[in-house]
Order: sequence, then C-alpha cells, then structure tokens
Amino acid sequence: MFIFDEITVDSGSREELIDITSKVKSAINSNQIKTSGILLISSMHTTAGITVNESADPAVKSDIRNWLQRLIPQHNSFKHIEGNSDAHLKTSLIGPSVQIPIIDGKLILGTWQGIFFCEFDGPRKRKVKFTFTGE
Amino acid sequence: MFIFDEITVDSGSREELIDITSKVKSAINSNQIKTSGILLISSMHTTAGITVNESADPAVKSDIRNWLQRLIPQHNSFKHIEGNSDAHLKTSLIGPSVQIPIIDGKLILGTWQGIFFCEFDGPRKRKVKFTFTGE
Amino acid sequence: MFIFDEITVDSGSREELIDITSKVKSAINSNQIKTSGILLISSMHTTAGITVNESADPAVKSDIRNWLQRLIPQHNSFKHIEGNSDAHLKTSLIGPSVQIPIIDGKLILGTWQGIFFCEFDGPRKRKVKFTFTGE
Repeated sequence: MFIFDEITVDSGSREELIDITSKVKSAINSNQIKTSGILLISSMHTTAGITVNESADPAVKSDIRNWLQRLIPQHNSFKHIEGNSDAHLKTSLIGPSVQIPIIDGKLILGTWQGIFFCEFDGPRKRKVKFTFTGE
Repeated sequence: MFIFDEITVDSGSREELIDITSKVKSAINSNQIKTSGILLISSMHTTAGITVNESADPAVKSDIRNWLQRLIPQHNSFKHIEGNSDAHLKTSLIGPSVQIPIIDGKLILGTWQGIFFCEFDGPRKRKVKFTFTGE
Repeated sequence: MFIFDEITVDSGSREELIDITSKVKSAINSNQIKTSGILLISSMHTTAGITVNESADPAVKSDIRNWLQRLIPQHNSFKHIEGNSDAHLKTSLIGPSVQIPIIDGKLILGTWQGIFFCEFDGPRKRKVKFTFTGE
C-alpha cells in the first residue's frame, strides 16, 4: 500500500515550532490507512524542518526556538543575499523530515512525543508531504 | 514483510551515547529477517535521540557528548519547568530516529559506523522501536 | 520493488557541501525506477552526513559550512586521537541520511531543494548508498 498526500501549514511568525500531530492523524484517517508501515513527513522548504519533540508543555517548543536563536542569531548571517542563512542552517540541523511507524492505522509515538513543523523564516504558507508505505 | 519490535536501553548517567548496534543485530536475528529492506530505529522519548557515528574509538562518543554540553549547557535552560530544555534541543538536533538499509538480513553500515542511543536526561530505562519494511 | 545501489563522491576540501541531486537522479534513471516509493540516501561514513537544502544560490552551502565551523571549530577537538571530533559531531547534527518520496520515478523535492553530501573531514573518496523501496 502506497499513499501520497499533502498537509498545509500557515506559520505566524519568523521562527516557530507548530505541532502538526493532529493534522497528520487527520490525513491518516482521510486516507483510510488501517494497516501497518512507515510514514514519512517531509518539509518541501529549505528554511523549515520537521522534528519530533514534547507536545505536553508548550514551553518546550518556545525553548527550542530560543536556544536555536541564541546559537545561530539571524543578524550574523553570511553571504547568502536574502540574509536568512541562519534559517537554512537551522533547517539542516533539525532535518527536513521524520519517519514514524504506523501499526494498524495508529501513529507509534512515545507518551510525550508530537510531530512539529519548525518554521525558521516565516510567516509563510508552507507545504508538507505525507508518504505512507506499508502492508 | 513487516516486522515491529522493541529494544530496551538502560542509561547510566545524565548524558551518554550508548552503542546499540549489537542489540539491533540481535533483534534482526530473533525476528529471522533474511530478506532486504529498510530498518527504522526510533526513540520513543523527547530527551533522547538516535544517531549513527563511530563505534571503533570510544573517545568519539564522549567527545560528541562533551561538545553538545559545551554548546548547550544544562544550567542555561529556559522556561520549561523541568529545567531540561537543553535535553529537548539536543534530541531534536541529533534526531529521533535513523534508517539503515538491510540486504539479505545484514545491516548496511560503513566500516566505522555503529548505531547510538543518545541519552540527554538520564539515567533512565528507555524504549526504542524497531520497524522493518522489506521484501 | 527493492533497488540497492551506490553513488561515489569525491570531496575537494576538508569541509564542503556537495550537491548530489543530479547523481541521485542518474541512479534513478539507470535503475529504471518508474514507480512510487521512498528513497533512502545514506552516508557510509562517520565524518560526512547528508542533508536537503537550497541548491539555487551556492552561497547557502558555503554559509552552512561557515556557520558550522564557527559553532564547532576544529582546533577545539577533544580526546579522539585523530583530532577530528568536530567532524564527528557535525555529522551527527546534520544526520547520516535523508529520505525522499518518489512518485512515478520522479524525486519529490521542493522548488529550491537539492540533496547535499556534507564533507567534514576531506578531501576523500566517499560512498553513498541508494536504497529504494516501493511499488
């Protein structure tokens, strides 16, 4: 079974982690995935990545954003003419995609885990690809 | 062919890279995987990630831990009430999972590569999911 | 359908991002992949990773290299006797592999996205594994 779909995300500020777990679950349901396999969630952008982290306490997502801003400040950007090379590096550090097991149509995440879209050069309208390969 | 299993890891200190390559090979054997496909190894935690790095010289894993502690010190944690936001960021930088090709039941790693569980808020008992999709 | 192949990369300096998108497309063509699935591109090395980032402006890849050099300078390496522990950490931060959807034999990348081999301890002759699982 192979399913390919798209999720859209609207970011509201330059740098922001957005919990997309419920959007991913909606796409599993709307595609009627009831079998087992692996789900690939991919950012189609070079200034926004995807990660898995804590969804319970919203302070975690703002702390991750603040830490990254401290490590890689925007104003220290190098040669790239758009002045957003900090956002390109943050994207490669976080990574462009995550893979999650699915068992009988259910996402296998730990108790505290959620899937986050990581915006580093918003606000923008963004696209995320949903690819399922399985039984 | 689809196989789903679990590996447990007991970390012994707050921050530590633990070579789990032999545990992964044991799970390949106990699940009698003799075909080819892709193996997904996933941390079920938000303060522990998975990576691939050098397994020959144990100084590499302590150097990676020391570098990360220097870049992202624990005492500089931000708002998250548990005071471990450094561990959450380290987890997203390392990443929650790795994918390794398997050919005829054999893990395809480079000469010096091993699979490491990266503990950033231990010591704890941890869970890693093993997901194989293949022929 | 399962395809396993190898791509070789020759790096020209110690630290360098090399756009391998056209090599990956050539391997898709030479393996006559015309179906849909997921492609895994894996570095077989512990001092070189793989990422997805901007392929349009070459300043982006040099900015990423320069940012990483500033964050993790080579001369601050720790105990590992080869003196390249900075390269091992950079590899785990970037990650050892990327996964890209393929639809009808076509790589699904965003408008500005390309696939980059990230050399952190060259110049060397390097190996990248190409693993396709799909319909």
